[in-house]
Amino acid sequence: MTMTHLYDIFEARLQAPANGNPYLDVTLHAHFKQGNRSVRVTGFHDGGNEYVIRFMPDTVGEWTYVTTSNVAELDGREGNLTVNAARDGVHGPVHVRNRFHFAHADGTPYFPFGTTCYAWTHQPLDMQEQTLASLEKSGFNKIRMGVFPKDYPFNTNEPLQPMFLETSGGGIDFDRPNPAAFQHLEKQIARLGDLGIEADLILFHPYDRWGYATMTEAQNLRYVEYAAARLSAFRNVWWALANEYDFLLDTIPVETWDRFCHILEENDPVQHLRSIHNGDQNMNFDHRKPWITHVCIQNWDVKRTPEWRLAYGKPVVNDEPEYEGNIIYCWGNISAEELVHRFWITVMRGGYAGHGETYVDPDDLIWWAKGGVLHGESWKRISFLLKLMQGDKLEGLEPMGMHDQWPWSRISGARDLGGKVSYLYFGEHQPNQWTTGLPTDDGRYEVDLIDTWNMTVTPAKRIEAFVPHPQRHGNITRGGKADAAFGIELPGRPYLALRVRKLD
Amino acid sequence: MTMTHLYDIFEARLQAPANGNPYLDVTLHAHFKQGNRSVRVTGFHDGGNEYVIRFMPDTVGEWTYVTTSNVAELDGREGNLTVNAARDGVHGPVHVRNRFHFAHADGTPYFPFGTTCYAWTHQPLDMQEQTLASLEKSGFNKIRMGVFPKDYPFNTNEPLQPMFLETSGGGIDFDRPNPAAFQHLEKQIARLGDLGIEADLILFHPYDRWGYATMTEAQNLRYVEYAAARLSAFRNVWWALANEYDFLLDTIPVETWDRFCHILEENDPVQHLRSIHNGDQNMNFDHRKPWITHVCIQNWDVKRTPEWRLAYGKPVVNDEPEYEGNIIYCWGNISAEELVHRFWITVMRGGYAGHGETYVDPDDLIWWAKGGVLHGESWKRISFLLKLMQGDKLEGLEPMGMHDQWPWSRISGARDLGGKVSYLYFGEHQPNQWTTGLPTDDGRYEVDLIDTWNMTVTPAKRIEAFVPHPQRHGNITRGGKADAAFGIELPGRPYLALRVRKLD
Repeated sequence: MTMTHLYDIFEARLQAPANGNPYLDVTLHAHFKQGNRSVRVTGFHDGGNEYVIRFMPDTVGEWTYVTTSNVAELDGREGNLTVNAARDGVHGPVHVRNRFHFAHADGTPYFPFGTTCYAWTHQPLDMQEQTLASLEKSGFNKIRMGVFPKDYPFNTNEPLQPMFLETSGGGIDFDRPNPAAFQHLEKQIARLGDLGIEADLILFHPYDRWGYATMTEAQNLRYVEYAAARLSAFRNVWWALANEYDFLLDTIPVETWDRFCHILEENDPVQHLRSIHNGDQNMNFDHRKPWITHVCIQNWDVKRTPEWRLAYGKPVVNDEPEYEGNIIYCWGNISAEELVHRFWITVMRGGYAGHGETYVDPDDLIWWAKGGVLHGESWKRISFLLKLMQGDKLEGLEPMGMHDQWPWSRISGARDLGGKVSYLYFGEHQPNQWTTGLPTDDGRYEVDLIDTWNMTVTPAKRIEAFVPHPQRHGNITRGGKADAAFGIELPGRPYLALRVRKLD
Repeated sequence: MTMTHLYDIFEARLQAPANGNPYLDVTLHAHFKQGNRSVRVTGFHDGGNEYVIRFMPDTVGEWTYVTTSNVAELDGREGNLTVNAARDGVHGPVHVRNRFHFAHADGTPYFPFGTTCYAWTHQPLDMQEQTLASLEKSGFNKIRMGVFPKDYPFNTNEPLQPMFLETSGGGIDFDRPNPAAFQHLEKQIARLGDLGIEADLILFHPYDRWGYATMTEAQNLRYVEYAAARLSAFRNVWWALANEYDFLLDTIPVETWDRFCHILEENDPVQHLRSIHNGDQNMNFDHRKPWITHVCIQNWDVKRTPEWRLAYGKPVVNDEPEYEGNIIYCWGNISAEELVHRFWITVMRGGYAGHGETYVDPDDLIWWAKGGVLHGESWKRISFLLKLMQGDKLEGLEPMGMHDQWPWSRISGARDLGGKVSYLYFGEHQPNQWTTGLPTDDGRYEVDLIDTWNMTVTPAKRIEAFVPHPQRHGNITRGGKADAAFGIELPGRPYLALRVRKLD
């Protein structure tokens, strides 16, 4: 009897001859059973005579399994396992909760505060160690990374190994995956998991000179199934089906993305999160489709976050609100101050944002693509915001008002689903006092002033609520009374926030 | 024979009894003729036995006129005048030129760089003098100002005098204009004209406690005709029909705004500019209507400027991209840095922006409403930008690319209609070098680096153009060659611009 832990990987390795091309010819599944419940898992060939079944148990207790295959040696193989409670710090895969937010399977809230190192697993091994060390220090809990290597400006080095086997002619045989390369990828995904970091895994991207972006439709479909078979059992995997899908439309027609999603639905028993990221700001994928779990976008216009929530009715993760840096490309040269500002706006409008860093380097060692070392100033402030949210055990910040409502198109405010904490973020606004969005009742509240750049939290000064002179707007007489039970005096400089906590 | 100058005011004062209510009962027009040309001018009663015909000649030479009226003493009165060349510095009224831009009648380009002092003509006279002195120093060449006094937060003082006569009961008789009040308004419009400042005159606004916002439809229509009769001859008048028309919909239905415009078309021989300003960001007036000459809006989201150009096909004047200040209202508390940034973005995307200043004052003496003294930091930088444009005798800046086009949704660039000068504004972006939008030919160019905040202009350092590593995006292989004939090295900090001037 094999023992394992909840959300860890159970792996059964089976041996059978690998005649012909097992990637094309062999079907292998296992059905894991617990009582009346049955979970179908897809197996895969792992090189040589090795075939693998991987399973991430999502309940404790006894499980049995039996395989089916078109290869006699792999068919009807049986086994069982005992699943014990999750190890400390293991919370299980992340899913959508409360429509616009996320949580781990064990109920722990999860706020995606991610960064981007597209091709870090293809860099020299010592640099990969450096990346992991930087990630551990950084506070980021998600990373966008590609399965395939990357060819792009500042990304011209060869990967350590191709993801499919090389032919004798020096090309790549996209019908033969490279087990060693996937094993390395898996090792790094597992290490991210140990650090509490979700791997937002990009299956397809257009930055290519080797042929990954021009595989045939059949090759693409098979690769997605293979990825599901190999990687679904990793609790910290997210399926980022594409980076900039709209720059791949010449080789992957838009309807094929739906097929990819369906293959994941069929072959990923965990039903990991699925998203498709756009390139052009006006080419959002149709995130309303039911197989898309959340909105993954690239858009600098972060005050529109509530529009995307409304349009798609799903969590919004804006992974590219432009990156901190100074390269010539405008998606990668905003100031640290601006990126921190965009994080606060996004989060305080009910979405989540992503970090990237693109400072020019003499050796092209740029975090956003290769990892290594962080040089910027935004990551600390982003981590500060995440810690604030985690410190209060928030459930999820819901925006005050929607995009068009006064004053929430101009400043940002949000209230936690838990009901006890709210935030106001003023950004470029610098009022000398504030009322709107503050408590309207007599309860006991603690209000703190947050300097988002200097990362300070100090008690805010409470004052009488501002009572505006009455005014007629349309047929409504406004004003004449305050819109909150008290006001807060503010220092009249930009990039400040208020946190309001209800006591008892 | 009366002598006058081009674009100055010719005034004929006629005497007749003022029985009954001349405002309601007397019709008076004059037809000014020059050769076959005839211009109809509407006259008005100016108190007592005084009736006035005002005319702004737009061509030199001999003119004759004859009046028509339903009052015998005012009917058939004749006269003539000789119009000489314009006085020095007088360029005539501003009209639209080149679809998205403006020019004076004599052909001098005009870039609206305006500020806002809604109720300055209703403040104590010494403060009005202060306002004029501040305006002269400021460099602004337009001011938004209301005909009526203002009741609003921070605006609670009584005006010097009502615009209509008071009744014996202390109310206001909206059927009897106050000649003294209009004479004062006219004096101040004329003084603005002497300073080269356009008076963007707001006929209706919702900030009211006296009854101006709740006049009857008949009273409103008559008032518009009266305003046209009195004020059309001032070369520096613009008709800002409303401030925040959408907050007046309870008393002025949306179709009535069209009638107001038609009355101005009929009674304003100069056809001064006509616009209608919104309150809510999503309530733009339908500026496509042919009687609207330009887009006047309130919108903080200034990177959208090219969208409004496209939507309406007219010059865009964003008079309220939020104001510099620190009051509690978010339309009035952005930092000086942010307002300067928004000016540059707007202008470099083919629009024009407006200034306002709303710093808290113990006596509520706030520039945006009352004028007085400027306390902020943005006005100097705004004036600096205007001087740059005037220094090069620009015709009008047309945006490079439109809203969605790379990289112009992220940074801003514009080329002058004259063809010799272009600008790139990087804003929150801080590339260490640049090429896109720089000249692609071998001509001789002078390139300067502009620090928009510190107001410095220094020669930019020319370098080899950046040659990007080739990349595949869709079926296009990009990169491999530079997109300009040379590059510019940049210091990698935000809020910089480049100016490129073609030498020959």
